[in-house]
Amino acid sequence: MIRENFEKNMLELQNKMVEMVDLTVVAMEKAFTALQQQDMSLALDIIEEDAYIDNLENEINQMAIWLMAKEQPVARDLRRIVSMIKMSSDIERIADFAVNTAKATVKINKTESILAKTSIVEMKDISMDMLKKAMQAFIEEDIALAKVVGELDDKVDEKNHQNYAVLRGYLAENPHDTEQAVQLLMINRFMERAADHITNMAESTAYFIKGQLFDLN
Amino acid sequence: MIRENFEKNMLELQNKMVEMVDLTVVAMEKAFTALQQQDMSLALDIIEEDAYIDNLENEINQMAIWLMAKEQPVARDLRRIVSMIKMSSDIERIADFAVNTAKATVKINKTESILAKTSIVEMKDISMDMLKKAMQAFIEEDIALAKVVGELDDKVDEKNHQNYAVLRGYLAENPHDTEQAVQLLMINRFMERAADHITNMAESTAYFIKGQLFDLN
Repeated sequence: MIRENFEKNMLELQNKMVEMVDLTVVAMEKAFTALQQQDMSLALDIIEEDAYIDNLENEINQMAIWLMAKEQPVARDLRRIVSMIKMSSDIERIADFAVNTAKATVKINKTESILAKTSIVEMKDISMDMLKKAMQAFIEEDIALAKVVGELDDKVDEKNHQNYAVLRGYLAENPHDTEQAVQLLMINRFMERAADHITNMAESTAYFIKGQLFDLN
Repeated sequence: MIRENFEKNMLELQNKMVEMVDLTVVAMEKAFTALQQQDMSLALDIIEEDAYIDNLENEINQMAIWLMAKEQPVARDLRRIVSMIKMSSDIERIADFAVNTAKATVKINKTESILAKTSIVEMKDISMDMLKKAMQAFIEEDIALAKVVGELDDKVDEKNHQNYAVLRGYLAENPHDTEQAVQLLMINRFMERAADHITNMAESTAYFIKGQLFDLN
Protein backbone atom coordinates (compact mmCIF):
# COMPACT_ATOMS: atom_id res chain seq x y z
CA MET A 1 0.00 0.00 0.00
CA ILE A 2 2.82 2.40 0.90
CA ARG A 3 4.69 1.32 -2.23
CA GLU A 4 1.55 1.85 -4.30
CA ASN A 5 1.19 5.38 -2.97
CA PHE A 6 4.84 6.08 -3.63
CA GLU A 7 4.54 4.89 -7.22
CA LYS A 8 1.47 7.08 -7.68
CA ASN A 9 3.39 10.13 -6.47
CA MET A 10 6.38 9.26 -8.62
CA LEU A 11 4.10 9.01 -11.65
CA GLU A 12 2.63 12.42 -10.86
CA LEU A 13 6.14 13.86 -10.66
CA GLN A 14 7.07 12.22 -13.95
CA ASN A 15 3.88 13.53 -15.59
CA LYS A 16 4.83 17.08 -14.62
CA MET A 17 8.17 16.54 -16.33
CA VAL A 18 6.45 15.16 -19.45
CA GLU A 19 4.22 18.25 -19.46
CA MET A 20 7.32 20.47 -19.23
CA VAL A 21 8.86 18.67 -22.22
CA ASP A 22 5.65 18.92 -24.27
CA LEU A 23 5.32 22.65 -23.56
CA THR A 24 9.00 23.20 -24.34
CA VAL A 25 8.70 21.47 -27.72
CA VAL A 26 5.63 23.61 -28.51
CA ALA A 27 7.50 26.79 -27.44
CA MET A 28 10.53 25.93 -29.57
CA GLU A 29 8.42 25.10 -32.64
CA LYS A 30 6.51 28.37 -32.17
CA ALA A 31 9.78 30.29 -31.80
CA PHE A 32 10.99 28.88 -35.10
CA THR A 33 7.68 29.61 -36.85
CA ALA A 34 8.01 33.20 -35.60
CA LEU A 35 11.64 33.31 -36.83
CA GLN A 36 10.82 31.86 -40.25
CA GLN A 37 7.70 33.99 -40.79
CA GLN A 38 9.14 37.07 -39.03
CA ASP A 39 5.99 37.12 -36.90
CA MET A 40 6.70 39.51 -34.00
CA SER A 41 3.37 38.96 -32.28
CA LEU A 42 3.93 35.18 -32.11
CA ALA A 43 7.46 35.78 -30.80
CA LEU A 44 6.11 37.92 -27.97
CA ASP A 45 3.58 35.19 -27.02
CA ILE A 46 6.42 32.73 -26.38
CA ILE A 47 8.16 35.14 -24.02
CA GLU A 48 4.94 35.47 -21.99
CA GLU A 49 4.12 31.76 -21.92
CA ASP A 50 7.51 30.79 -20.46
CA ALA A 51 6.38 31.67 -16.91
CA TYR A 52 4.17 28.56 -16.93
CA ILE A 53 7.15 26.30 -17.72
CA ASP A 54 9.25 27.97 -14.99
CA ASN A 55 6.41 27.33 -12.60
CA LEU A 56 6.32 23.64 -13.45
CA GLU A 57 10.02 23.36 -12.59
CA ASN A 58 9.33 24.88 -9.18
CA GLU A 59 6.44 22.46 -8.64
CA ILE A 60 8.68 19.52 -9.52
CA ASN A 61 11.37 20.70 -7.09
CA GLN A 62 8.90 21.20 -4.26
CA MET A 63 7.13 17.90 -4.86
CA ALA A 64 10.43 16.01 -5.12
CA ILE A 65 11.62 17.41 -1.79
CA TRP A 66 8.26 16.68 -0.16
CA LEU A 67 8.33 13.10 -1.51
CA MET A 68 11.90 12.50 -0.31
CA ALA A 69 11.04 13.77 3.18
CA LYS A 70 7.83 11.74 3.36
CA GLU A 71 8.91 8.43 1.81
CA GLN A 72 12.64 8.37 2.59
CA PRO A 73 13.50 6.57 -0.63
CA VAL A 74 16.88 4.88 -1.13
CA ALA A 75 18.97 3.48 -4.00
CA ARG A 76 17.23 3.49 -7.37
CA ASP A 77 14.11 5.35 -6.14
CA LEU A 78 16.24 8.10 -4.68
CA ARG A 79 18.36 8.36 -7.84
CA ARG A 80 15.14 8.58 -9.86
CA ILE A 81 13.88 11.57 -7.86
CA VAL A 82 17.23 13.37 -7.94
CA SER A 83 17.40 12.76 -11.71
CA MET A 84 14.00 14.42 -12.09
CA ILE A 85 15.21 17.48 -10.15
CA LYS A 86 18.25 17.74 -12.41
CA MET A 87 16.37 17.01 -15.65
CA SER A 88 13.66 19.59 -14.92
CA SER A 89 16.41 22.19 -14.55
CA ASP A 90 17.76 21.19 -17.99
CA ILE A 91 14.27 21.38 -19.53
CA GLU A 92 13.75 24.85 -18.04
CA ARG A 93 16.98 25.99 -19.72
CA ILE A 94 15.90 24.54 -23.08
CA ALA A 95 12.61 26.44 -22.79
CA ASP A 96 14.69 29.57 -22.09
CA PHE A 97 16.44 29.02 -25.41
CA ALA A 98 13.01 29.16 -27.10
CA VAL A 99 12.51 32.52 -25.35
CA ASN A 100 15.98 33.68 -26.39
CA THR A 101 15.22 32.68 -29.98
CA ALA A 102 11.97 34.66 -29.81
CA LYS A 103 13.85 37.73 -28.49
CA ALA A 104 16.41 37.39 -31.30
CA THR A 105 13.49 37.20 -33.77
CA VAL A 106 12.19 40.52 -32.46
CA LYS A 107 15.66 42.05 -32.91
CA ILE A 108 15.99 40.70 -36.46
CA ASN A 109 12.56 42.16 -37.23
CA LYS A 110 11.34 42.22 -40.84
CA THR A 111 14.18 41.83 -43.32
CA GLU A 112 15.28 39.60 -46.18
CA SER A 113 15.96 36.36 -44.35
CA ILE A 114 19.30 34.53 -44.63
CA LEU A 115 18.13 31.68 -42.40
CA ALA A 116 18.02 29.30 -45.39
CA LYS A 117 21.78 29.78 -45.91
CA THR A 118 22.25 27.91 -42.62
CA SER A 119 21.12 24.56 -41.20
CA ILE A 120 19.78 26.11 -37.99
CA VAL A 121 16.25 24.77 -38.61
CA GLU A 122 17.65 21.25 -38.98
CA MET A 123 19.56 21.72 -35.72
CA LYS A 124 16.27 22.57 -34.02
CA ASP A 125 14.60 19.51 -35.60
CA ILE A 126 17.38 17.19 -34.39
CA SER A 127 17.34 18.78 -30.90
CA MET A 128 13.59 18.37 -30.49
CA ASP A 129 13.87 14.75 -31.65
CA MET A 130 16.63 14.29 -29.04
CA LEU A 131 14.43 15.85 -26.35
CA LYS A 132 11.53 13.48 -27.04
CA LYS A 133 13.93 10.51 -27.10
CA ALA A 134 15.58 11.62 -23.82
CA MET A 135 12.17 11.76 -22.15
CA GLN A 136 11.17 8.37 -23.58
CA ALA A 137 14.48 6.85 -22.45
CA PHE A 138 13.75 8.01 -18.89
CA ILE A 139 10.16 6.73 -18.86
CA GLU A 140 10.98 3.36 -20.43
CA GLU A 141 14.33 3.06 -18.59
CA ASP A 142 15.95 2.46 -21.96
CA ILE A 143 19.70 3.02 -21.70
CA ALA A 144 20.29 2.22 -25.39
CA LEU A 145 17.97 5.08 -26.34
CA ALA A 146 19.80 7.40 -23.92
CA LYS A 147 23.00 6.58 -25.83
CA VAL A 148 21.30 7.42 -29.16
CA VAL A 149 20.66 10.92 -27.74
CA GLY A 150 24.41 11.32 -27.14
CA GLU A 151 25.14 10.26 -30.73
CA LEU A 152 22.65 12.75 -32.19
CA ASP A 153 24.42 15.52 -30.26
CA ASP A 154 27.48 15.02 -32.51
CA LYS A 155 25.35 15.95 -35.54
CA VAL A 156 24.22 19.16 -33.87
CA ASP A 157 27.82 20.07 -33.01
CA GLU A 158 28.86 19.51 -36.61
CA LYS A 159 26.10 21.82 -37.91
CA ASN A 160 27.04 24.41 -35.29
CA HIS A 161 30.58 24.65 -36.74
CA GLN A 162 29.31 24.80 -40.34
CA ASN A 163 26.80 27.56 -39.56
CA TYR A 164 29.40 29.51 -37.67
CA ALA A 165 31.64 29.59 -40.77
CA VAL A 166 28.73 30.49 -43.08
CA LEU A 167 27.51 33.36 -40.89
CA ARG A 168 30.97 34.76 -40.31
CA GLY A 169 31.54 34.73 -44.06
CA TYR A 170 28.23 36.55 -44.55
CA LEU A 171 29.21 39.20 -41.98
CA ALA A 172 32.52 39.84 -43.78
CA GLU A 173 30.68 40.40 -47.07
CA ASN A 174 27.61 42.22 -45.71
CA PRO A 175 28.72 44.70 -43.07
CA HIS A 176 25.39 46.56 -43.46
CA ASP A 177 23.41 43.53 -42.20
CA THR A 178 25.13 42.73 -38.89
CA GLU A 179 21.99 42.52 -36.72
CA GLN A 180 20.49 39.53 -38.52
CA ALA A 181 23.76 37.61 -38.88
CA VAL A 182 24.76 38.22 -35.25
CA GLN A 183 21.33 37.13 -34.00
CA LEU A 184 21.50 33.97 -36.13
CA LEU A 185 24.96 33.27 -34.67
CA MET A 186 23.31 33.49 -31.25
CA ILE A 187 20.41 31.20 -32.24
CA ASN A 188 22.94 28.75 -33.71
CA ARG A 189 24.65 28.71 -30.33
CA PHE A 190 21.30 28.33 -28.46
CA MET A 191 20.55 25.16 -30.45
CA GLU A 192 23.99 23.74 -29.73
CA ARG A 193 23.51 24.48 -26.02
CA ALA A 194 19.97 23.03 -26.02
CA ALA A 195 21.36 19.78 -27.46
CA ASP A 196 24.02 19.76 -24.70
CA HIS A 197 21.35 20.09 -22.01
CA ILE A 198 19.39 17.24 -23.63
CA THR A 199 22.56 15.13 -23.55
CA ASN A 200 22.80 15.96 -19.81
CA MET A 201 19.24 14.64 -19.46
CA ALA A 202 20.25 11.38 -21.15
CA GLU A 203 23.22 11.14 -18.77
CA SER A 204 20.92 11.67 -15.75
CA THR A 205 18.72 8.86 -17.09
CA ALA A 206 21.70 6.52 -17.52
CA TYR A 207 22.81 7.35 -13.96
CA PHE A 208 19.37 6.64 -12.52
CA ILE A 209 19.16 3.29 -14.34
CA LYS A 210 22.69 2.01 -13.76
CA GLY A 211 23.81 3.89 -10.62
CA GLN A 212 27.04 4.92 -12.30
CA LEU A 213 28.08 7.99 -14.25
CA PHE A 214 28.23 8.14 -18.04
CA ASP A 215 29.74 10.74 -20.31
CA LEU A 216 27.58 10.71 -23.45
CA ASN A 217 29.11 13.94 -24.75
CA MET B 1 26.36 11.59 17.94
CA ILE B 2 24.30 10.84 14.80
CA ARG B 3 23.69 14.56 14.38
CA GLU B 4 27.40 15.24 14.84
CA ASN B 5 28.24 12.74 12.11
CA PHE B 6 25.63 14.23 9.82
CA GLU B 7 27.03 17.74 10.32
CA LYS B 8 30.53 16.43 9.60
CA ASN B 9 29.33 14.93 6.32
CA MET B 10 27.43 18.09 5.42
CA LEU B 11 30.55 20.15 6.02
CA GLU B 12 32.55 17.82 3.78
CA LEU B 13 29.93 18.27 1.06
CA GLN B 14 30.03 22.03 1.48
CA ASN B 15 33.84 22.04 1.37
CA LYS B 16 33.74 20.26 -1.98
CA MET B 17 31.44 23.02 -3.24
CA VAL B 18 33.78 25.72 -1.89
CA GLU B 19 36.66 23.98 -3.68
CA MET B 20 34.62 24.00 -6.92
CA VAL B 21 34.01 27.74 -6.54
CA ASP B 22 37.69 28.46 -5.80
CA LEU B 23 38.84 26.47 -8.83
CA THR B 24 36.21 28.12 -11.02
CA VAL B 25 37.35 31.62 -10.00
CA VAL B 26 40.96 30.61 -10.76
CA ALA B 27 39.92 29.17 -14.15
CA MET B 28 37.99 32.31 -15.08
CA GLU B 29 40.82 34.65 -14.05
CA LYS B 30 43.28 32.53 -16.04
CA ALA B 31 40.93 32.56 -19.04
CA PHE B 32 40.85 36.35 -18.94
CA THR B 33 44.62 36.61 -18.53
CA ALA B 34 44.94 34.39 -21.61
CA LEU B 35 42.41 36.58 -23.47
CA GLN B 36 44.10 39.85 -22.49
CA GLN B 37 47.64 38.62 -23.17
CA GLN B 38 46.63 36.47 -26.17
CA ASP B 39 48.43 33.56 -24.50
CA MET B 40 47.36 30.39 -26.35
CA SER B 41 49.31 28.01 -24.13
CA LEU B 42 47.57 29.32 -21.00
CA ALA B 43 44.19 29.08 -22.76
CA LEU B 44 44.82 25.41 -23.55
CA ASP B 45 45.72 24.70 -19.89
CA ILE B 46 42.27 25.86 -18.77
CA ILE B 47 40.54 23.49 -21.18
CA GLU B 48 42.52 20.58 -19.74
CA GLU B 49 42.02 21.51 -16.10
CA ASP B 50 38.22 21.62 -16.38
CA ALA B 51 37.96 17.82 -16.00
CA TYR B 52 38.87 18.20 -12.33
CA ILE B 53 35.96 20.61 -11.73
CA ASP B 54 33.54 18.29 -13.59
CA ASN B 55 34.75 15.49 -11.36
CA LEU B 56 34.03 17.47 -8.20
CA GLU B 57 30.42 17.97 -9.35
CA ASN B 58 30.06 14.21 -9.76
CA GLU B 59 31.53 13.63 -6.30
CA ILE B 60 29.06 16.12 -4.80
CA ASN B 61 26.12 14.41 -6.52
CA GLN B 62 27.19 10.97 -5.39
CA MET B 63 27.92 12.06 -1.83
CA ALA B 64 24.60 13.97 -1.60
CA ILE B 65 22.63 10.91 -2.71
CA TRP B 66 24.57 8.65 -0.34
CA LEU B 67 23.96 11.09 2.53
CA MET B 68 20.22 11.35 1.79
CA ALA B 69 19.90 7.56 1.70
CA LYS B 70 21.92 7.09 4.89
CA GLU B 71 20.62 9.92 7.07
CA GLN B 72 17.08 10.42 5.70
CA PRO B 73 17.15 14.18 6.32
CA VAL B 74 13.95 16.24 6.30
CA ALA B 75 12.95 19.90 6.12
CA ARG B 76 15.85 22.35 6.21
CA ASP B 77 18.59 19.65 6.11
CA LEU B 78 17.02 18.09 3.03
CA ARG B 79 16.64 21.47 1.32
CA ARG B 80 20.29 22.20 2.11
CA ILE B 81 21.46 18.99 0.37
CA VAL B 82 19.20 19.51 -2.66
CA SER B 83 20.45 23.11 -2.91
CA MET B 84 24.03 21.83 -3.02
CA ILE B 85 23.15 19.44 -5.87
CA LYS B 86 21.59 22.32 -7.81
CA MET B 87 24.33 24.84 -7.00
CA SER B 88 27.14 22.46 -8.00
CA SER B 89 25.45 22.11 -11.38
CA ASP B 90 25.45 25.93 -11.72
CA ILE B 91 29.13 26.13 -10.72
CA GLU B 92 30.02 23.47 -13.28
CA ARG B 93 28.35 25.59 -15.98
CA ILE B 94 30.23 28.71 -14.88
CA ALA B 95 33.50 26.77 -15.12
CA ASP B 96 32.43 25.74 -18.64
CA PHE B 97 32.17 29.43 -19.52
CA ALA B 98 35.84 29.80 -18.53
CA VAL B 99 36.58 26.94 -20.95
CA ASN B 100 34.42 28.57 -23.64
CA THR B 101 36.28 31.86 -23.12
CA ALA B 102 39.60 30.01 -23.47
CA LYS B 103 38.39 28.39 -26.72
CA ALA B 104 37.29 31.79 -28.04
CA THR B 105 40.76 33.13 -27.11
CA VAL B 106 42.36 30.43 -29.26
CA LYS B 107 40.08 31.40 -32.16
CA ILE B 108 40.88 35.12 -31.78
CA ASN B 109 44.59 34.22 -31.76
CA LYS B 110 47.15 37.01 -32.01
CA THR B 111 45.65 40.24 -33.32
CA GLU B 112 45.24 43.88 -32.36
CA SER B 113 42.87 43.56 -29.42
CA ILE B 114 39.59 45.50 -29.26
CA LEU B 115 38.74 44.11 -25.81
CA ALA B 116 39.35 47.53 -24.23
CA LYS B 117 36.52 49.02 -26.33
CA THR B 118 34.15 46.88 -24.24
CA SER B 119 33.46 46.41 -20.54
CA ILE B 120 33.73 42.60 -20.74
CA VAL B 121 36.56 42.50 -18.19
CA GLU B 122 34.43 44.48 -15.71
CA MET B 123 31.56 42.01 -16.33
CA LYS B 124 33.92 39.20 -15.37
CA ASP B 125 35.05 41.11 -12.26
CA ILE B 126 31.44 41.69 -11.14
CA SER B 127 30.51 38.05 -11.87
CA MET B 128 33.40 36.64 -9.85
CA ASP B 129 32.52 39.00 -6.97
CA MET B 130 28.91 37.70 -7.24
CA LEU B 131 30.13 34.09 -7.19
CA LYS B 132 32.16 34.60 -4.00
CA LYS B 133 29.22 36.43 -2.38
CA ALA B 134 26.77 33.66 -3.43
CA MET B 135 29.01 31.05 -1.82
CA GLN B 136 29.40 33.17 1.34
CA ALA B 137 25.62 33.72 1.52
CA PHE B 138 25.12 29.94 1.46
CA ILE B 139 27.75 29.20 4.12
CA GLU B 140 26.65 32.00 6.45
CA GLU B 141 22.93 31.53 5.65
CA ASP B 142 22.79 35.24 4.87
CA ILE B 143 19.66 36.00 2.86
CA ALA B 144 20.47 39.73 2.62
CA LEU B 145 23.74 38.87 0.88
CA ALA B 146 21.88 36.52 -1.49
CA LYS B 147 19.72 39.49 -2.48
CA VAL B 148 22.83 41.63 -3.14
CA VAL B 149 23.88 38.97 -5.69
CA GLY B 150 20.57 39.48 -7.51
CA GLU B 151 21.13 43.25 -7.56
CA LEU B 152 24.64 42.91 -9.00
CA ASP B 153 23.19 40.83 -11.83
CA ASP B 154 21.39 43.94 -13.11
CA LYS B 155 24.76 45.66 -13.60
CA VAL B 156 26.03 42.72 -15.65
CA ASP B 157 22.89 42.78 -17.81
CA GLU B 158 23.35 46.50 -18.45
CA LYS B 159 26.97 46.00 -19.59
CA ASN B 160 25.88 43.09 -21.77
CA HIS B 161 23.57 45.40 -23.75
CA GLN B 162 26.20 48.14 -24.03
CA ASN B 163 28.88 45.73 -25.27
CA TYR B 164 26.48 44.21 -27.74
CA ALA B 165 25.91 47.64 -29.33
CA VAL B 166 29.65 48.46 -29.35
CA LEU B 167 30.65 45.16 -30.96
CA ARG B 168 27.90 45.23 -33.56
CA GLY B 169 29.00 48.78 -34.48
CA TYR B 170 32.58 47.55 -34.80
CA LEU B 171 31.49 44.68 -37.06
CA ALA B 172 29.65 47.09 -39.36
CA GLU B 173 32.77 49.23 -39.72
CA ASN B 174 35.38 46.45 -39.79
CA PRO B 175 34.08 43.61 -41.95
CA HIS B 176 37.66 42.26 -42.27
CA ASP B 177 37.88 41.56 -38.51
CA THR B 178 34.77 39.46 -37.89
CA GLU B 179 36.45 36.61 -35.97
CA GLN B 180 37.56 38.75 -33.03
CA ALA B 181 34.32 40.75 -32.78
CA VAL B 182 32.13 37.65 -33.05
CA GLN B 183 34.18 35.83 -30.39
CA LEU B 184 33.94 38.84 -28.07
CA LEU B 185 30.16 38.87 -28.63
CA MET B 186 30.19 35.25 -27.48
CA ILE B 187 32.35 35.99 -24.42
CA ASN B 188 30.06 38.92 -23.59
CA ARG B 189 27.17 36.46 -23.62
CA PHE B 190 29.11 33.90 -21.52
CA MET B 191 29.60 36.50 -18.79
CA GLU B 192 25.92 37.42 -18.84
CA ARG B 193 24.98 33.73 -18.58
CA ALA B 194 27.54 33.11 -15.82
CA ALA B 195 25.95 35.92 -13.79
CA ASP B 196 22.51 34.32 -14.38
CA HIS B 197 23.76 30.99 -13.02
CA ILE B 198 25.21 32.78 -9.98
CA THR B 199 21.80 34.43 -9.44
CA ASN B 200 20.29 30.91 -9.56
CA MET B 201 22.76 29.92 -6.82
CA ALA B 202 21.59 32.84 -4.68
CA GLU B 203 17.98 31.74 -5.28
CA SER B 204 18.82 28.17 -4.19
CA THR B 205 20.38 29.61 -1.04
CA ALA B 206 17.29 31.72 -0.30
CA TYR B 207 15.12 28.64 -0.83
CA PHE B 208 17.21 26.52 1.51
CA ILE B 209 17.10 29.19 4.24
CA LYS B 210 13.45 30.22 3.98
CA GLY B 211 11.77 27.17 2.44
CA GLN B 212 10.04 29.33 -0.13
CA LEU B 213 10.94 30.34 -3.67
CA PHE B 214 12.48 33.69 -4.60
CA ASP B 215 12.96 35.29 -7.98
CA LEU B 216 16.12 37.41 -7.63
CA ASN B 217 16.38 37.91 -11.37
